[in-house]
Order: sequence, then C-alpha cells, then structure tokens
Amino acid sequence: MTAPVRYRALVAYTGTEFHGWQVQKNAPRTVQGALEDALSELARARVKVEGASRTDTGVHADGQVAHFDLPHARDPWRVRAAVNKRLPDDVRVLAVAEAAPAFHARFDARWKEYLYRWSRSEVVTPREHPFVAPLSPAARVELMRAAAAGLPGERDFGVLAVQRTGEGSEVRRLDLVEISEDGPELHALFRGNGFLRGMVRSICGVLADASRRRVPTDRIAELLAGGDRSLLSAKAPAKGLTLVRVGYE
Amino acid sequence: MTAPVRYRALVAYTGTEFHGWQVQKNAPRTVQGALEDALSELARARVKVEGASRTDTGVHADGQVAHFDLPHARDPWRVRAAVNKRLPDDVRVLAVAEAAPAFHARFDARWKEYLYRWSRSEVVTPREHPFVAPLSPAARVELMRAAAAGLPGERDFGVLAVQRTGEGSEVRRLDLVEISEDGPELHALFRGNGFLRGMVRSICGVLADASRRRVPTDRIAELLAGGDRSLLSAKAPAKGLTLVRVGYE
Repeated sequence: MTAPVRYRALVAYTGTEFHGWQVQKNAPRTVQGALEDALSELARARVKVEGASRTDTGVHADGQVAHFDLPHARDPWRVRAAVNKRLPDDVRVLAVAEAAPAFHARFDARWKEYLYRWSRSEVVTPREHPFVAPLSPAARVELMRAAAAGLPGERDFGVLAVQRTGEGSEVRRLDLVEISEDGPELHALFRGNGFLRGMVRSICGVLADASRRRVPTDRIAELLAGGDRSLLSAKAPAKGLTLVRVGYE
Repeated sequence: MTAPVRYRALVAYTGTEFHGWQVQKNAPRTVQGALEDALSELARARVKVEGASRTDTGVHADGQVAHFDLPHARDPWRVRAAVNKRLPDDVRVLAVAEAAPAFHARFDARWKEYLYRWSRSEVVTPREHPFVAPLSPAARVELMRAAAAGLPGERDFGVLAVQRTGEGSEVRRLDLVEISEDGPELHALFRGNGFLRGMVRSICGVLADASRRRVPTDRIAELLAGGDRSLLSAKAPAKGLTLVRVGYE
C-alpha cells in the first residue's frame, strides 16, 4: 500500500450561489463540498479538502488556497483538468501542485489579503453587480481613509468580530488597510496574519458610514479602545468582499 | 387627454439567463419582456419596448438602445430609478432621455458594434466564464487577423447568416473587423450598419477555426465568393458575444 500524496490548490469562486466555503449540515451548496465531491469522484475515494479561509456565504475568492490528499500520486496538471471538468462553473481550480505531506492550507498561512469593493454609481452594471456593494454617491475617499488610519497594528480585534467566541486569543496583526478610489468605486484592501469571523465586513460597515459622515472618522479607534459593540455599524454586504491572496513562508 | 411621450434608454444585461431580447411565446424570460413588465408596472398601462438589436439567447449587451412611450411626461432620471427598482439584477437601465416622438431604436440605428471574446487559458476564472468562449491555447492572433481581413465592405452576407430569409436584401456594410490580443484573450470587434441573424457568430466560428489552422485563412473570402454554406464552421457560442454600442445620427 502506497502513502497518500498531498496537493495544494489555488481556487477561485463567485460566492453568489454558495453557502460559503465550509460544508454544513443542510447547506446544499458549499465550495468545500463542491471540491470534495469533484475530487472524490476523481479519486474513487472520499477526499477531504481544507481551505485557508472559511469564507462566508456570498463572499468571493480569487485566490483561496486549499490542500487535500489523493490515494496515489498523479500529475498535478491532470488533476486540475479532471477536477475542473467535474466542478460547477462558479468555482475553478486555477493551479495544483504537489505539497509537503505536512502542508496545511489554514495553519501554515502567514497572511491573507481581502478586497472590499463599493460602487458610488447610481446604476451598477449587471456585470459588476455580483461583486460590489452600493454606496452613496456622496461618500468620500478621504473620510474612509481617515476612518481606516487607526486600524493597522497587532491588537485585540474581538470587538469587531461578528460574535465573541470566548475561546482563544482575539489578537490579530493587521499589516495594511489601503483605501483607494477607482472612478465611482471605493476599495478597501486588508492584509493581516488572521481575521476573526465577520471582522472585515464589520470594519467595512463602519468605514462606509464614516465615508458619509454618519459616524465620526475616529469611530474605529473608539471601538478598539472601548470595546463597546453598540458603536458598530451594520455589517457590509457579503457580495462586496473577495479573498484575494493567501501568503505562505 | 395628453399625448404619450417617447423615451430612449441605454440598457445593459448579462444574457446568460435570458432567452434573448425578443418576447416569444413560451419563452418565460426575455430582456424585452423584463423591461416591458417593469415599465408597465410603473406606468400602470401596457408599455411596449423596441430594441435596436434583437440579441439571441445568451448574448450580452453593454449598450443596447431601446425606445418606449409613457402615457405622461416624467423626469427621465426618475424613470431610470423606478424601472431599475423593478428589474431583475441581470438587466439595468443605464440612462434614460426624452426622445423625438418619431425616434425608433431599430430603424434609426446607423451602426452597431459587437465584441466577441475568446480565452486561450487552460482555466477561465468564474468571473470571466459567463463572457468568454474557450479557444485552444494554440490559436494565433495573426491567423485570425488574416482570416478577418477580407470581411469589411458592402456586400451580400447572406451566406454567413444562420438561415437565408429569402425576403429583403442581405446586403450589409461592414465598416470594421478588428482582431486584438489581450493576454490569453482574443477579441474580435465588429462595426457595421446592420447584421443578419447569426452573422457575427457564424463569422466567429470561421475565425476560431482559422486561428487554429483548421480551415484556410481565406475561408471567409471563399464563402463570400462562392456562397457555399457547407464551408461554414460551427457557430461560435453565444456567451462570447456582447452588443457594445449602437450609433445614431
């Protein structure tokens, strides 16, 4: 009997029709589930897939990273072609490579990058509609940038998570929050060593409100200092969020 | 009783889930039907919509032009907002303006521009998947360009239509066929005063085959000279085609 072989895959998906990454009871359509089904059919054995980020329902990915084991060694290029043939159109494996037996997509990830997109257009085209959240035409990039200025650093971000877990550390290192303007769009790019559940969308909710002066631009500092969750804005919609990249050693 | 007022609209849609532009019996979902339903609800009267191009099932539009009459004058900006509120997400009215009472979106159109997109990538991302047709990585832009060189001009394009109508002239003026390369993508941009049913996709079928040397690069000249439809390639898939712009006086 030969030892199973570990592979690493780069995965892209449009999250609109998925109940997020992670297989859940009664959730018929998840990205992890679609990949496991395709790979299991290919391997004629049950294959488990682990992803770097458990993206929420409706969140997209351009560069999710996942690992899985196959019972026998296969040409990675052929694995990619065979699994894509079995996947639905809204998820694609962009690349497959053999990985070290101990490689773990989630535990070995050193940083992740997420991009949030808003459009200030009165009308968002059908092409862009699945990927951008609406924002008032009056929203200003300088206000959003000012509101984001206090975010980077290593600190307890628990107040910005969807719910406090009560278990484990909520300290994360946020390396970069870059706010930029692209015509009618506003973008927020986040890079950090880890993100709590719902953290990016909670931050984006506050950033959106700050860009329209609905809350003071120092609201995030206030939240991080005081930990008062009643100061949070509504979470920004999932469809504006994309997992862009995952970094490893 | 006041006279009805004519409006002109710029419309974008993703054609994937539509049975084309034109309302048909038993075709539940057409772009024209969606617009007529939304406008009729708004006007509380049956509103008919005429489009510049009757795009086929699966074909997209970035700049379709349509006209319609409303029983009373309304602020065009409000019409746009109200109709978009009633439309499904895959069709949007980008602009509305009052038009001359005799304006006709189809009969007054002087030229139309269509873009066909192919991807030579081994893997097309889910984001691009609905808008590009696959093409072999071996396809070459120079071969496609050579194959398209003989197209422009005013001539009988009947042999390149899906079916000969037998009625009316099949002479059209093709002003431009521009083949370009964008990384792994090949693009064919067509501008002309009119296009026969299926003509762009028939041409693109031959262009795709010529780019891979499956047919000689002078195949289109041969078709136009001899009128032998048995020389046609398979029609290129609808999803690669987008109506880009319609020009008026």
